[in-house]
Parts: sequence; C-alpha cells; structure tokens
Amino acid sequence: MRLLRRSWAGLLYQRRHQHHRRFLVTTSGRSNGDREEQQHKWSSPGSRPEQMLYAAFWAGGLTLGFHWLTNRHHHVLLEEQKGPTEEEQEALARLWHVTLRKELPTYRADQVEPHNCPENRIWVTYGLGVYDVTDFAENHPGGDKILMAAGSAIDPFWAIYQQHNTLEVLELLEGFRIGNLEGELVTSVDDELGSPWSQEPQRHALLKPASKRPFNAEPPIGLLAEQFYTPNELFYVRNHLPVPVISPEDYELEIDGGGGGVGGKEQTLTLEGIKALPKHSVTAAIMCGGNRRSEMTKVKAVKGLSWGAGAVGNAKWSGARLCDVLKQQGVQPDEAKHVIFEGADLDPTSHPYGASIPLSKALDPRGDVILAYEMNDEPLSRDHGYPIRVIVPGTVGARNVKWLTRIVVADQESDSHWQQNDYKGFSPSTDWDTVDFGKSEAIQAMPVTSAICTPQPGSRVKVDDDEGHITVRGYAWSGGGRKIVRVDLTNDEGLSWHVAELEQEDIPDGRHYGWSLWTARLPISEAQRKAGDVEIWAKAVDSAYNVQPEKFEHIWNLRGVLANAYHKVKVKIV
Amino acid sequence: MRLLRRSWAGLLYQRRHQHHRRFLVTTSGRSNGDREEQQHKWSSPGSRPEQMLYAAFWAGGLTLGFHWLTNRHHHVLLEEQKGPTEEEQEALARLWHVTLRKELPTYRADQVEPHNCPENRIWVTYGLGVYDVTDFAENHPGGDKILMAAGSAIDPFWAIYQQHNTLEVLELLEGFRIGNLEGELVTSVDDELGSPWSQEPQRHALLKPASKRPFNAEPPIGLLAEQFYTPNELFYVRNHLPVPVISPEDYELEIDGGGGGVGGKEQTLTLEGIKALPKHSVTAAIMCGGNRRSEMTKVKAVKGLSWGAGAVGNAKWSGARLCDVLKQQGVQPDEAKHVIFEGADLDPTSHPYGASIPLSKALDPRGDVILAYEMNDEPLSRDHGYPIRVIVPGTVGARNVKWLTRIVVADQESDSHWQQNDYKGFSPSTDWDTVDFGKSEAIQAMPVTSAICTPQPGSRVKVDDDEGHITVRGYAWSGGGRKIVRVDLTNDEGLSWHVAELEQEDIPDGRHYGWSLWTARLPISEAQRKAGDVEIWAKAVDSAYNVQPEKFEHIWNLRGVLANAYHKVKVKIV
Repeated sequence: MRLLRRSWAGLLYQRRHQHHRRFLVTTSGRSNGDREEQQHKWSSPGSRPEQMLYAAFWAGGLTLGFHWLTNRHHHVLLEEQKGPTEEEQEALARLWHVTLRKELPTYRADQVEPHNCPENRIWVTYGLGVYDVTDFAENHPGGDKILMAAGSAIDPFWAIYQQHNTLEVLELLEGFRIGNLEGELVTSVDDELGSPWSQEPQRHALLKPASKRPFNAEPPIGLLAEQFYTPNELFYVRNHLPVPVISPEDYELEIDGGGGGVGGKEQTLTLEGIKALPKHSVTAAIMCGGNRRSEMTKVKAVKGLSWGAGAVGNAKWSGARLCDVLKQQGVQPDEAKHVIFEGADLDPTSHPYGASIPLSKALDPRGDVILAYEMNDEPLSRDHGYPIRVIVPGTVGARNVKWLTRIVVADQESDSHWQQNDYKGFSPSTDWDTVDFGKSEAIQAMPVTSAICTPQPGSRVKVDDDEGHITVRGYAWSGGGRKIVRVDLTNDEGLSWHVAELEQEDIPDGRHYGWSLWTARLPISEAQRKAGDVEIWAKAVDSAYNVQPEKFEHIWNLRGVLANAYHKVKVKIV
Repeated sequence: MRLLRRSWAGLLYQRRHQHHRRFLVTTSGRSNGDREEQQHKWSSPGSRPEQMLYAAFWAGGLTLGFHWLTNRHHHVLLEEQKGPTEEEQEALARLWHVTLRKELPTYRADQVEPHNCPENRIWVTYGLGVYDVTDFAENHPGGDKILMAAGSAIDPFWAIYQQHNTLEVLELLEGFRIGNLEGELVTSVDDELGSPWSQEPQRHALLKPASKRPFNAEPPIGLLAEQFYTPNELFYVRNHLPVPVISPEDYELEIDGGGGGVGGKEQTLTLEGIKALPKHSVTAAIMCGGNRRSEMTKVKAVKGLSWGAGAVGNAKWSGARLCDVLKQQGVQPDEAKHVIFEGADLDPTSHPYGASIPLSKALDPRGDVILAYEMNDEPLSRDHGYPIRVIVPGTVGARNVKWLTRIVVADQESDSHWQQNDYKGFSPSTDWDTVDFGKSEAIQAMPVTSAICTPQPGSRVKVDDDEGHITVRGYAWSGGGRKIVRVDLTNDEGLSWHVAELEQEDIPDGRHYGWSLWTARLPISEAQRKAGDVEIWAKAVDSAYNVQPEKFEHIWNLRGVLANAYHKVKVKIV
C-alpha cells in the first residue's frame, strides 16, 4: 500500500493523469453492458428483497475499497516524485475517485458518524468524499446493505460488492456529495499487513484472472482437454472472498446435526479426526455456475465475471464421506431437508461464505459427497479450500464450499447471499426491475454442456489427412451424476453431425460425476477449404437424453449462469 | 354412431344384446380421420380457468344420475316382461337419449357432418337425436369444447363431462332438436374366437388409436391438462402385444434375486402376497418414449407410431415397493447391475415383452419403484397391466412393464428387443444403414419436455380481457425425479417470454415424479390482433436447469423418440 501511495503520488506529480484516467476507463469499460444494467437498476423504484441480490456481483481486480486512504495521503506522498510501474498503474486505476472538492465543507469522521439513520440523514464516506445518501438509500438495490455503512465508510463494502466499480456508479455517488473528509492518518490497510487480501496464495502464471480480488481465474481452454484429471495448479479458482489462513492444528469442523442439539447432535471434528474416517475417492468435475458466461453476454449484457469455457476442472477428490459423518451423528433422512455449509472466508461484516444442498444428496452413499482433503492425491491447496472442502459431485461449484468450518442439518436452505440471491436461473425476460430471487430455485445439479477446447476460435487449422479431416477436441459434462452418452459435432450448421469418441470413466450412470473428454474428426469439404472459414458446433447428450439448447438467446438470464448452449467456434482452414 | 344405433335397436328388441351393445357403445368408433377432425375442431378460443372447472367432474364409470333414462326404457323393456339388470341399466344409461321423434325429419350421419362450423350451423347428434346447437354454443360454458363434437356425436364427450348427465341438461338439449339420426346396421368388429386380439378390453371412445392391434391410443390433448390426475379411462395406452387375460387367482410373480439361485434367492409372490406387503403410493407421470413423434416426423420421416402430445398421463399409483421385495430377498446393491422385468404379453414366438432398469434405481427407496395394483385408487385396468404393473417413476414408459410376471436381478440388461433394439436415441445423421443399436444407451430417465394443451393448433382464440390476453394451458415434465421449475411461453418467437403459473405436487426435487400443469396468460399485441395469426411456443426448465431444445432438426433420430423440442402451436386470434 505504501508503494501504491508512492506511485500514485508520483503519478500526480508527473502529471500522468492520463494514465490514471485511461486505466479507469478500461476498468469500467470491461463491463460495458453492466453499466446499463446498473444504471437502470439504481434508478429503479422500491427496494424489494430480491434487489439485495444486486450486491452480489464481484467485478474483479482490486477493490476500490481501500483507496480513499491512499488518496488521502497523496499530498504527503507527492513529494516522493516517483513514477508508477505498470503494476502500480493498475493499482492506481482503482484509486480514481480521489478528488478534493474545495467548494464543499470538510467533515471529520466523528462528524459523519452520527448520520447513521434516516432520521439524522444517512451519510457515508468514500475516499475523500462525504455523501448524503438518504434519498438514494431508499432506492438502493442493496437496501439494507448500504445502511450497514451508514455513518462510516462504504469502501470496505464495495471491496466485496465489486459491481460498484464502474465509472457510472461512482459518478452517481458523486451526485450526492456534500463535503470532504478531513485527512487523517489511519492505520494502514496494506496488503502486506491488515488487508484481507494480504495473504492470498501464489497462483500459476497461466491462470487467467477474471478478477484478482477476490481471485477468480481459469486456465487457457486449449490446455483443458489435454488431461483427464486437470492439474491442480491449472484448476480454475472461484473465490468469493479473501482466502482465509488456516493452520491444520487449529482447524475445527463444527457439525450441528439438527434436532435442536438434542441427543448430542453437535460435534467438532479436527483435521486428524476427519482423516481418521474411512477414506473415499470420487472423480468429479466442478463447474462454476457462470462457466461460458462470456458467450451468453454477447446476446445481451449480464452481471458477473466474464468466464470463458474454462471455469471447470476434473479431479479425483479424496476425503471422508459426509453420509458417514451424518449417520454417525444420528441424522435421519426425514428429519430435515437441507445441509448447510459455511466456510472460513468472511465478508466485511464477518459473515462466512455459505451454501446448502438437499439432505437427500448428503445422505445418499451414491451421492458421493465428501469432506475432501485431497485433490488428485495431493493435499488441497489454499485456493481450493485447504484444509477441508466439501465436494458435492454433480452440483454447481458454489455449493462445494471451501475452507469448510461448519455443517448444519436444517429445515431451510442456507440464508447466505449466495444461496438466496445468487446462483439461480431466470426467464430471458426477467430483468433487474422484475427479478424476484425468492421465486427461483437455487442451482444444484447442473445441466448438460460441452465445449470445444481445440481448435480455438480464430485459429488456423490444418486439414490433417488426405481425406480432408480436422481434429476437434473438448469436454462434456452433465450434473446430477448423469453420464455423457454422446457428443455430436457439425461444421455445416447441423446439416450433418459427427459423433465424437468419448474418454470417460466406467462408472454407472447416476453416479457418473467426472467429465468426459471427446475427440472428433470432421470432414472438410472442398468448398469449405476454398472458403477458408468453418464454424464448428458441439452439443452433448446426457444419460437422461437431455441436450444442450442451440443458442443463448432463449436461455439468457440476467446473471449469466447456466450458459450451456451449443459451443460454436469459428476457425480458418489452411 | 352406427354401432350405437344398432346396439340401441338391440337393446329394444333383444335383451341378450346388452353385453354386445355396451361394448359397442364404448368402442363406438368413428374412423381415425373423423377423430382427427374432431380433435382439430376441439379448439379452445379463450379457455379460461373457470372453464377448466367445468371438466372437473370426472367420476369414472357411470353415475347414478342416469336412472331416469333407464326408467324411460323400462317401459319398453317391460313389454318383453323383462326388467333390465343392473348391468343393462348401466348400458342403457349410455344410450339414454333414444327417443324417436316422428314429427321431425331424419338425417344421415353424412348429412350431419358438414354442419361443423358456425357458418354452416353447428349440428351434433346424441343418441337418436340431431340438434342444431349453433345458438347454444356461444353461451355454452365449455365454449370451444362443444365444437369438438360439431358435425358428429357428443356422446363420447358427455361420457367424460358427466355433469351433463342430468335431466336438466338433457331437456335443454332436446330444445335444440331438429331431427332424428338414421339408423343403420353395421357388421360387428369383433374378432373371431382364437384370435390373439379377441380378448382386448373395452376402451373409451375418446382414446384416439395410433394403432388398433396392438392397441395404442392417446386422449385428445385438449382434455389432458384439465385434471392433475389423468382419468384412468383417458390415460394413453401403449401396448406392444395383445392384452393378456389374467385371473387374479392364478396370477404369480416370479422373482429371481440373482446369484444363480444360490441361497434361496427365488420366490414366487401371489397377488394377495403382494397386496399383503406395505402399500406405497407415488404420483408419477408415465410418458411414451415416442410422445410428440408426430412433430419430429415433420422434419424427416421416422419409424414409429404417430403419437401426438397425448402419450403421457399422470396418476397416483399404489402397490408394494420393489426395494422392499428385493431387500427381503437379500439382494445387495453391488451384486448386480440391472433388474429385468417380463410381462405376460407374448409375441408370436411366445417371448414376453421385457425391459430392465438399473438395480440402483430399483433399490433406492427414493426411486419409488413399485409393483402397482392400483391406479388412481382403482384396481389397474387390463389395458394398464392388471393385475400388477411395475411403475418406474421418472423413467420412459417402456420400462414400466405391464402384466408383470417375472423379475430377474442380473448383470446384464434385458435382452428383449425393446431394451436392446428400440427405445434408444441417436445422432441426427444416423440412418438405418449406419445405425448400431448396440452403441447407444437404452432410454431410462426422460428429458425435460412440455406441451401446450389448449388452445390447439389452428383454433380460433378469443382475446379474453380488456388488456388483450389469451390463456394458454399445458403440461410439463422431466424424468429422473427432476421437478419442473419454470415454464416459459412466447408468442413473438422468443423476443419476450412469459412465465407460467405451475400446478404441481409439493414433493422434494429428485423425487418429483408427477407432472406439472401450467397456465400462462399471453398478451396479444394490436399488430397480432390485426394479423390474426399467432404462434405460441412453450419450453420448460427442470430442476437441473436442463431446457428443451428449440427445434426438432438437431434432435431428430430415426426412431422418433425423445421428441422434446419446444412445443409450437399456431392459432388464430379473434
């Protein structure tokens, strides 16, 4: 952070505002369509409960959160006269909202603080600015969320709810500006020290971040179909919050078996205790609910990280069976409906990441839900949930809670944001004005999908034999234990289809949780050779003979989840 | 109708014709073509929810309300000095409206037939009467429904809509009487003794046969979404072979628990023995693998019965759990992979109909597989498998073996034709020259689907309120216990979608085997009103967020199974 401040100061001194500005534009421009949505949303009347979901959208990259501090200090730092490095510039990009408005009065933090309820007017600070958001709060999609910051800084919240990181939102906020916050040296929230992001693990250079804080990244899709078991360090990472630091000695998993604690239904397991239980392994692909969102967003903007087709990986997971643990604790199939998981990763209000699954899935030995401590025969890495992550095979990634610290058997689903107001599907005509998250089912088992991993879009593909074929390779997967039974490829818009060879585990249907890799050889006609351009389509069929929809238009949804239309890749034939 | 008349004559003159007569009445067949015509006419311009109530009086069997009719004929029969038996009374009840009114002209059926639209006046026949109901039809609560019978007999409909069976209704109808229907003797359609088809059961006149031998028939789709539980007599029938005759006393179910007969793993259950086991009920829709084939075949010809969207029904099934029976016999989950079922229906080489399901499904208490002896709280009818049929909820109809005589736990699937060389899906490019049934998976759980039941294709639909809406109603279902979570409707080719209201059981996902009925109200634009033509599309989403494919082209397969593309219905707006 000091470095950051220094560089920022340097930026100002050397009149490199342009850089700064350019970065800012780039940052917000990344989610071009989001802007419209957000503006639209922010002007929407009435704050319905479902609007709270709005607060869910991690944008990516560094948070705007802490930068008011930096900003505040920039006069001091100015004197250091240092120019920003590229890395610093990127950091600066997140510090843009730093303008001191001399025509406005200055307030101390303790003057802001009493303005924490509508009666006293609701003030918040952001960076150097003091804002009266009383009128705005009523229409704020996050409703109560913004009130959590009343009388204080909203920066830490925006660090989490990164959908605010757009120029538009910040300009909107500026409209409520009433003053400047008096500069004051405060304790550093440096990454190196107190920042929640200061202890993020090292990541593989090939992981391409969709956002850095929280860290969300996928491997290059061209690598994905190379190995049946995705290498751990290339396995996509989807974090919702900072990565917690957990020492194996201190780790404890609290289990509340429901029934109000009667009959000794609570227990705590240590890491050693979990490892002492019978070890069970399962091959399971984990897929993000937003995998392939970047294709859906081409139809119309959606909110969410712009995932390619690489937000999926396949691994052998090992650990203790959840069904054993629950049965040992006397949990009966009919005494509750859900199992809630909580992670050690906390939001700014110290609420953990949470999710739930149906109890029937948890208790079913064929459901293969495990408290995993190994991934491809290695201990879990921190990014993947060290020391314990629950693996819920066949179920959307979001329910495979990492850094698992608590399990609760309950009658209701998790009340977490991610269970209630995110990871749900909607009709294409549902927009942010009409959405009601309470009326939609939380995603559990995922629908059938597939993707072409090679060749990649725009690549030049050689016809590889005398008969004029090209080789196409990719993955296919369906949730709920449904095996892939066929993958069809076409390069003439469906006039002719070619069935791919499958590479998959010999596991019974209904319990087939791993992905299938596939290879197809497609004939290239003389006409296609001459034209030079070919579009390849892939579609998979699962064991319930569910198929992928042809295109994204009719499955579009405002969160950009469940993007499982045909994968279409245009290549050049050489 | 001709049959009806003949039997009526028989009733008057020869008491012993009662049996025959009754049979003929129930099968009173018009030709296929006529029925298609009838179905076509059975449009529903503006079928409102309240109209659905109208159909809600299904009771099954005849009602006592007919007695006054019986009385009427009593006099006739009295002359023979033979009062009608109870059975005869029942038959009479179906023939109730038989008064010849000599003061009125007589019409032949082919003279009635052209009067099938308001322009030509709407005539219907009932018993011996010919009625001009043009003026009445407008005010008829069933509106569109009465038009289904235009130009022909309303008798079969009133057999369903038994609220007509009152003196008041019949007197009302008599007020529209314009003539008598000319009687005509026709030859019996009975098979000779000895024919395998000679003992086929009676079927409801509204079941529209796709083939008669074996009997395969579906109800008019317009009736299908009227009731959550499909009336037994209207439930589609899919027979592969002649219906066997089984006396309850002689019935035996042979169970081979596998393991080569070691350890006493064979047993035989009588009907009483099965009924003595704990009784379990499950609501399950059964759907033919070829449901909606007639739509797929429009893309390109397929082999198979030309089913409409009515090869599905929803019922409450009751019987003994298969898992109880198998566990009682010591069958272990890992000792075999499949459970084979055989029926009492035999092919010409005396091989029984057969099918198999995964053992895991059979052993799973949540799989709800039962040896059913009741359908909607009545004993199974012969067409539906009397005395015992296995119900495999969520699984294609073909595995729900009727007239069940044998169960075998085995390592291999059933070697029957229907398991090995039928009921499998293929790529659209697979033809009869290249098909290899051995390489495709037998259909088990079915994919998500839906259909619009009203309005019907080509019907004239009234905009039913000031805001300009039409009401659309239908069913949706998915296999494997997956609940329907949403049904989307569009009438502008997907530019805007409207979410339907669902009517479904409150059963946990994963065990949700019943269908969902749905109702949507679609806005009709001014432009659409003027144009007059609207195409409505329906698509459903199941709890794994699987969706229907948009069109049939890319799911086409040579057997025409799994026809679950969007259901598209063109109607005229009036």
